[in-house]
Amino acid sequence: MTDPQNPPAPGRIMATEMAEQPAVLRRILDQGGPKIREIAAEIAARKPRFVLLTARGTSDNAALYAKYLVEILLGKPAGLTSMSTTTAYGARPDLTDVLVVTISQSGGSPDLVASTKAAREAGAITLAVTNNADSPLADVSEFHIDLLAGPEKALPATKTYTAELLALYLLVEGLRGGDGAAAEVLPELAGQVLERQAEVKALAERYRFAQRLVLTSRGYGYPTAREGALKLMETTYIPASPFSGADLLHGPLAMVDNVSPVIAVVPDGKGGEALQPVLDRLRGRGADLVVIGQQDQVDTASAGFALPPGVPEEIQPVLEILPLQQLAYEVAIARGQDPDAPRALAKITETH
Amino acid sequence: MTDPQNPPAPGRIMATEMAEQPAVLRRILDQGGPKIREIAAEIAARKPRFVLLTARGTSDNAALYAKYLVEILLGKPAGLTSMSTTTAYGARPDLTDVLVVTISQSGGSPDLVASTKAAREAGAITLAVTNNADSPLADVSEFHIDLLAGPEKALPATKTYTAELLALYLLVEGLRGGDGAAAEVLPELAGQVLERQAEVKALAERYRFAQRLVLTSRGYGYPTAREGALKLMETTYIPASPFSGADLLHGPLAMVDNVSPVIAVVPDGKGGEALQPVLDRLRGRGADLVVIGQQDQVDTASAGFALPPGVPEEIQPVLEILPLQQLAYEVAIARGQDPDAPRALAKITETH
Repeated sequence: MTDPQNPPAPGRIMATEMAEQPAVLRRILDQGGPKIREIAAEIAARKPRFVLLTARGTSDNAALYAKYLVEILLGKPAGLTSMSTTTAYGARPDLTDVLVVTISQSGGSPDLVASTKAAREAGAITLAVTNNADSPLADVSEFHIDLLAGPEKALPATKTYTAELLALYLLVEGLRGGDGAAAEVLPELAGQVLERQAEVKALAERYRFAQRLVLTSRGYGYPTAREGALKLMETTYIPASPFSGADLLHGPLAMVDNVSPVIAVVPDGKGGEALQPVLDRLRGRGADLVVIGQQDQVDTASAGFALPPGVPEEIQPVLEILPLQQLAYEVAIARGQDPDAPRALAKITETH
Repeated sequence: MTDPQNPPAPGRIMATEMAEQPAVLRRILDQGGPKIREIAAEIAARKPRFVLLTARGTSDNAALYAKYLVEILLGKPAGLTSMSTTTAYGARPDLTDVLVVTISQSGGSPDLVASTKAAREAGAITLAVTNNADSPLADVSEFHIDLLAGPEKALPATKTYTAELLALYLLVEGLRGGDGAAAEVLPELAGQVLERQAEVKALAERYRFAQRLVLTSRGYGYPTAREGALKLMETTYIPASPFSGADLLHGPLAMVDNVSPVIAVVPDGKGGEALQPVLDRLRGRGADLVVIGQQDQVDTASAGFALPPGVPEEIQPVLEILPLQQLAYEVAIARGQDPDAPRALAKITETH
């Protein structure tokens, strides 16, 4: 029962879990890293030719990040699973030489368990990435990576998302024989970014009365745009549409004008370069453009949040999402909503 | 020059092209079918193990449809390409035994040409599906399927989308040694559906002042939900968020209440069955639910558009999208916008 004299502060649970992220990242590097490298070596020895990634919701955005890593760093073709092909239609593709990675915070969703079981029976190498080593998903998979993030109680997932990103980065590094040492800077930098919440709070004022949002990025930043949009929709209920920069130019640009604000995630690297024509076009339309990314891109935007320079592009997503998580939180608070109590959400979704 | 005494009617071009769809489908079956079967037989003889699909915008929704066909009917793993991994990051995965299908109305987008060329160099079997046999994309691909849809002048693509769906269905049927005869009914049924535009016009009143829309489906209907949302965004500028039914329950359901109308595409078959718990949940929340699909689902919804019964589920998407195209058109007209002149769109998008 809630004590009526001391009601819980809105968003307290989400705020606590966002703040835990530097410690969770540290734990994955120190305690999880050796096991992840060991699993990666075993899988690499089996020489998978294709990688399929299976997940839902926030974890599906982590899966998309892993798809970029697999294609770019590992040089293997990859795909995201359309789960209903297995669970509703009974498809049983031949999965010899295929690595199937299933990503789930709880490891408890029945459709993920069923599709992973089917994949294993179809010859796949199966790996589960979950925050619960005792989960049914961990149980049916040949390999399991534990996110070590501690119980996640907030409905909008935050710490398990960045944990998934880091674990998947270490996995792909391991698959190609790397040590993932570049990620050592992340806990410290994540702490520095999270300390700048006052900047995010000021940005949140901009969206207090927004009716819609468009998020865009390219390359490694695109999963961040998708996850940022999901966080904003879950906590503030503002319809937030994520588009890759290239797709935005193919049609939905018609939605963007001075009443449709745009948030662009601009990676410092090739993804950011590929996004440049989109940014130019948005500026040319007089769009309200907020940039999460490089300082010089922030300086030429309507507003933004600059990320620390010098981080390799493939691990920037671990930092990029942090101000967007805080933004979702702050906009919800500014609108008088409780980020801990989104309408109609259950923590473990039982889709079949 | 436009004659000021006789201005073009808003949406005339889009309306003309929507109306051409039964004839285009007929043409693909009669004139295109034999060539598609021949190409499919040649590709099948090379025994591809994995299928990658590459496209943008509307064609990307056709690619997603093909992914379901490949996984379910053909029993092969499949993935959608993240094009920037090739064009921005220079990824060169080993594509031996991989069929790469690139889908594009114009066949002129430089990034599609570049990524297809790279795929061919990396060992892939390359197939282009375009509406222009003389296009650069057709030229760099080993195989080419012509959509035979005639010039598409409207900015919101309609007839090339249904042409892509049918051509891809015939391709996958050919790959598994089928004749695709089930599709013979489509031109006639498409004509019957398109004749019921008055029903759609009545539905459009509902969204004239809508600030947001959610579209949902599962399985074969999910690409329709995505393409319907894209059409609505392109022509009416209403933010329309498409979610698979399972993903909707994982978070964005918080956005759905009596001011966030939902359009559900309910396939007559396993996809519709898998969507049932989502429909029940939406009804339980008192959501405004419009159903495109089976008559009995329409009867228990707030409103809807019933599709002809007895059509195999895997080809229902060719019919499902038709009322959604008309809805986008009618809502735009009702809001005083011109569906032929979306703001800021160019017909061939030059993304690199």
